[in-house]
Amino acid sequence: MFRSHTCGELRIADISKSVTLAGWVQTVRKFGSITFVDLRDRYGITQLLFNESLNHLLDANPLGREFVLQVKGIVNERSNKNSNLPTGDIEILVNEFSILNKSITPPFTIQDDTDGGDDLRMKYRFLDLRRNAVKRNLELRYAVGRSTRNYLHENNFMDIETPFLIKSTPEGARDFVVPSRMNAGQFYALPQSPQTFKQLLMVSGYDRYYQIVKCFRDEDLRADRQPEFTQIDCEMSFVEQEDILQMFEGLVRRIFKDVKNIDYTDVIERMTWTNAMWTYGNDKPDIRFNMQLCNLKYPTHTFSDKPVIENLINGADFKVFDEAETVIAIAVPGCAAYTRKQTDDLTEWVKRPQIGMKGLVFIKCNEDGTFKSSVDKFYNEEKLKAIAEAAHAKAGDLILIVAGAEERTRKAASDLRMYMGTTLGLRKANDFKLLWVLDFPLFEYAEEENRWVARHHPFTSPKPSDIDTMINNEPSIANPAEYLKHPYANIKANAYDMVLNGNEIGGGSIRIFQKDLQQKMFAALGMDEHEQQHKFGFLLGAFEYGAPPHGGIAFGFDRLCSILGGSESIRDFIAFPKNNSGRDVMIDAPSTIDEKQFDELQIKLDIKEK
Amino acid sequence: MFRSHTCGELRIADISKSVTLAGWVQTVRKFGSITFVDLRDRYGITQLLFNESLNHLLDANPLGREFVLQVKGIVNERSNKNSNLPTGDIEILVNEFSILNKSITPPFTIQDDTDGGDDLRMKYRFLDLRRNAVKRNLELRYAVGRSTRNYLHENNFMDIETPFLIKSTPEGARDFVVPSRMNAGQFYALPQSPQTFKQLLMVSGYDRYYQIVKCFRDEDLRADRQPEFTQIDCEMSFVEQEDILQMFEGLVRRIFKDVKNIDYTDVIERMTWTNAMWTYGNDKPDIRFNMQLCNLKYPTHTFSDKPVIENLINGADFKVFDEAETVIAIAVPGCAAYTRKQTDDLTEWVKRPQIGMKGLVFIKCNEDGTFKSSVDKFYNEEKLKAIAEAAHAKAGDLILIVAGAEERTRKAASDLRMYMGTTLGLRKANDFKLLWVLDFPLFEYAEEENRWVARHHPFTSPKPSDIDTMINNEPSIANPAEYLKHPYANIKANAYDMVLNGNEIGGGSIRIFQKDLQQKMFAALGMDEHEQQHKFGFLLGAFEYGAPPHGGIAFGFDRLCSILGGSESIRDFIAFPKNNSGRDVMIDAPSTIDEKQFDELQIKLDIKEK
Repeated sequence: MFRSHTCGELRIADISKSVTLAGWVQTVRKFGSITFVDLRDRYGITQLLFNESLNHLLDANPLGREFVLQVKGIVNERSNKNSNLPTGDIEILVNEFSILNKSITPPFTIQDDTDGGDDLRMKYRFLDLRRNAVKRNLELRYAVGRSTRNYLHENNFMDIETPFLIKSTPEGARDFVVPSRMNAGQFYALPQSPQTFKQLLMVSGYDRYYQIVKCFRDEDLRADRQPEFTQIDCEMSFVEQEDILQMFEGLVRRIFKDVKNIDYTDVIERMTWTNAMWTYGNDKPDIRFNMQLCNLKYPTHTFSDKPVIENLINGADFKVFDEAETVIAIAVPGCAAYTRKQTDDLTEWVKRPQIGMKGLVFIKCNEDGTFKSSVDKFYNEEKLKAIAEAAHAKAGDLILIVAGAEERTRKAASDLRMYMGTTLGLRKANDFKLLWVLDFPLFEYAEEENRWVARHHPFTSPKPSDIDTMINNEPSIANPAEYLKHPYANIKANAYDMVLNGNEIGGGSIRIFQKDLQQKMFAALGMDEHEQQHKFGFLLGAFEYGAPPHGGIAFGFDRLCSILGGSESIRDFIAFPKNNSGRDVMIDAPSTIDEKQFDELQIKLDIKEK
Repeated sequence: MFRSHTCGELRIADISKSVTLAGWVQTVRKFGSITFVDLRDRYGITQLLFNESLNHLLDANPLGREFVLQVKGIVNERSNKNSNLPTGDIEILVNEFSILNKSITPPFTIQDDTDGGDDLRMKYRFLDLRRNAVKRNLELRYAVGRSTRNYLHENNFMDIETPFLIKSTPEGARDFVVPSRMNAGQFYALPQSPQTFKQLLMVSGYDRYYQIVKCFRDEDLRADRQPEFTQIDCEMSFVEQEDILQMFEGLVRRIFKDVKNIDYTDVIERMTWTNAMWTYGNDKPDIRFNMQLCNLKYPTHTFSDKPVIENLINGADFKVFDEAETVIAIAVPGCAAYTRKQTDDLTEWVKRPQIGMKGLVFIKCNEDGTFKSSVDKFYNEEKLKAIAEAAHAKAGDLILIVAGAEERTRKAASDLRMYMGTTLGLRKANDFKLLWVLDFPLFEYAEEENRWVARHHPFTSPKPSDIDTMINNEPSIANPAEYLKHPYANIKANAYDMVLNGNEIGGGSIRIFQKDLQQKMFAALGMDEHEQQHKFGFLLGAFEYGAPPHGGIAFGFDRLCSILGGSESIRDFIAFPKNNSGRDVMIDAPSTIDEKQFDELQIKLDIKEK
């Protein structure tokens, strides 16, 4: 061993001990004939003192930043203690040293506030990983993994490895494929998730399975997506939805306790998908703050169970509202005094292409009970008051109203809510609010192909009360314009998402375990019998031999870690992430391969002209 | 929840409780008007008693093998207890039941001694996994993994995930490659191991890393090789060989304790590679039994430090021995009385193509001190006695002697030793003997290319005392016939293998951490500077920024589990293994992919005529 202690462990009680340390040179400070060196390793920093007897050796072998150094010496009490460092009471009086390896000057400083930009840090990721900020993220990631494993173990889950070289069954996202040399002309696929394998394990009787496992999706990478990502993947047999919700509430509470030392004892809220869309405009609401959406006008088909607010805005000759499919208001607390500049900025914000609104209507709810709006010529004080009441605005609030086509407007209202939440500091990184979103639609309508697609995946069961509807109706859609009247449009899924601070951290469902229902589902998604057999024959086969009722969930491990770490970026929590083009710029991958490899795989390039 | 208890937990203390169980029908036995059903789940088997009040329901809904059944009932004491079952004291008096799913007749019985052949069981792996024998293997695998994680955690190791989509740098085994859609014409490779990444983590200061991780090798599959396999992958900084040996002796002892409840307190033997080859004929000797090889004649270059046994066999006009490069004897204990049939069978055994010997010489060491051999006409009693002494044969032993070209003969002697060990019952599945094999040669000679190849991998450090030899000599081999005289032929590696019962379960090395030495190594392996930069520029770059001394080890997780489970086959310890053609016959992968996938990846098939 090159060391007797780490750079993080020596204390005042160790004084006079002879020790050997090894680590990296963080700083070198010369004061006349003595030299101080901060030596760093994974565990901390310890100050070294080289006195004048070593001067000639230091002159002959000058130390630089990031040199790897081994020193032998005696633990001394420091005259000038540093209370910011756990080792700040002591220093090592060096009597022997050895440079184990040198370093050229790093391209950026190895400090929390580094001067290195993103690209540079990714190219030199092995140096970036030395920074405390990144190290803490990976430590947190390890702690989350360990907490997860312990909880699941205590609850009788078994870690069972599923294969990585599987079969390509593209549904939704694209597969990465792997040419097989031994089976020329054929390809493996990398798993998008172990979904079918974990279901087979349930058929096999392993009633509580888990895995922390890499998954792969060949998608065009939006910001903060990775082609390879990690899931906490779980499945249980003989359970209903409620059993799963409780089991995994337990998991998340345990992680909060183990990793953040937070006793998350609050009841975890539950919300139907319909309610989430109605009150927050999206299916993963951030409920750390209120500022709910008020639907002043909406297509009644989506929220058929919601009260219709009549005559609040229509009939006032304000064409923008009269002609809009949807009009949504948000009461922003305490912002009635916003200046013209501030409201103009907000208008510009919603007009950006990403948001896509034509404009923004304001109603200022003055402290004196009066109203001032940008639509005063259409709505009198009484009308404005009624709108304010509907929007649950109080004196001092600023009501923001967007109008337009349903989906875009709802999304804009949701984005605006989040933006205002951020602006007003209501989205605190260390405030954590969990939420279950339940009762998703089973199907989505794919306009281009005039057919149904699975909202979650083809293995999700409908609600028990909707199974008959599914079995007894044909999936074909006679009149595309009226797809919403098709019975399938109202089938709800036995599915659930766990949401943390506005991010979906996990999602799952009770699965179909009956062969005939699974076949009906595949058919509903446009798969004929041949395709069903080719792609999923093994699963349909397995369902013939006594498949138990089962369901599961998968957590996005990267995302979960980043939120617990108070960051928006999953890349900060992955040791070696890829960039937005799917490249690892450090190792320079992907790259070309040898002619011999093409030969052996019996494939060749077929590059298209652009 | 579909159950209040599992099928493995009810005991006499639970009598009179109302319970709900769910599981699979193992057996149905009708006795007049009552029916007994054994209900099975992951945890055990519980007997159900359906009395006559349920007869009509059972008649209407007959139960078959592997049906999924839910029952409600009362726990009763059994009149006819079964002491072989933990639940054998009780049975459930059923008052309500529900068939959750049916099963068609399975293609083989779900029992320890199944009637299903290998191919059938692989096709229906989801049923095979229901068998207790397979379940116990996966449970053992999970226990080994958990024990490993706990030990490494307690020793400050961190689980850090390394990427799966990396760069193709074929050295030795072939890479599986993955075409990149976003970077047309380029490919990722799947990792053969996380080697370079774990070394980068050491450069980054994560001084104790581990991962239980899938690795991939596109090799022609010999029996019991899998294209995807799992490693326990570890790396440490600031260590020397001895630190690694001790740390991982601790790991294996812990696994023995946790998983097998075995206190492996014996000193773990250590043997140089030279000694292993000398006394056992291979580098992973099974030391559960002795029967060491006696080298009656050998090429002195391989074992230059070994005593030469002179004049034992030469000069007796026995051409087979006189002309052989190598002659090796084994004393098989207690087999002097072997019949002519038995010795003939042994001769046939060594003449099989896999062994490839031309014949076998016998010397029977009779109980009365006389000798009888198949070469009596060449060797007199005195000579035979001398050979017997050299081979450490005792009265009653049978000496077997093979002769021929060095490598083949040594391998044949080793195989013969193992065969006799098995025949004589000396290789007991529940006897475990660990061994470190040390001081491997750093290089092997590749005759076809007249160059050196790395015996372990290009990152393994030479012994400190051999570094100068490596730096100060050029790798080129002027005269192929005399490659053994090249200084590189004698360089030993700072490498170590852990061997259990004749299987290599782990291997590793102290790594090169100096840029110049690493470059010298790459050059020795025939890589010019351009290739070095293209393939490993990132690692050479990282070594410029303060790489610490480091080393590591990787255990073959599948193999380790199979040996601990007393099996020769790793396939029995993998939930979803592939066959010898790399196929998953259950899901039928690999398979063809869609035209659209080829289009998007910009590749096409290029199938060669055969």
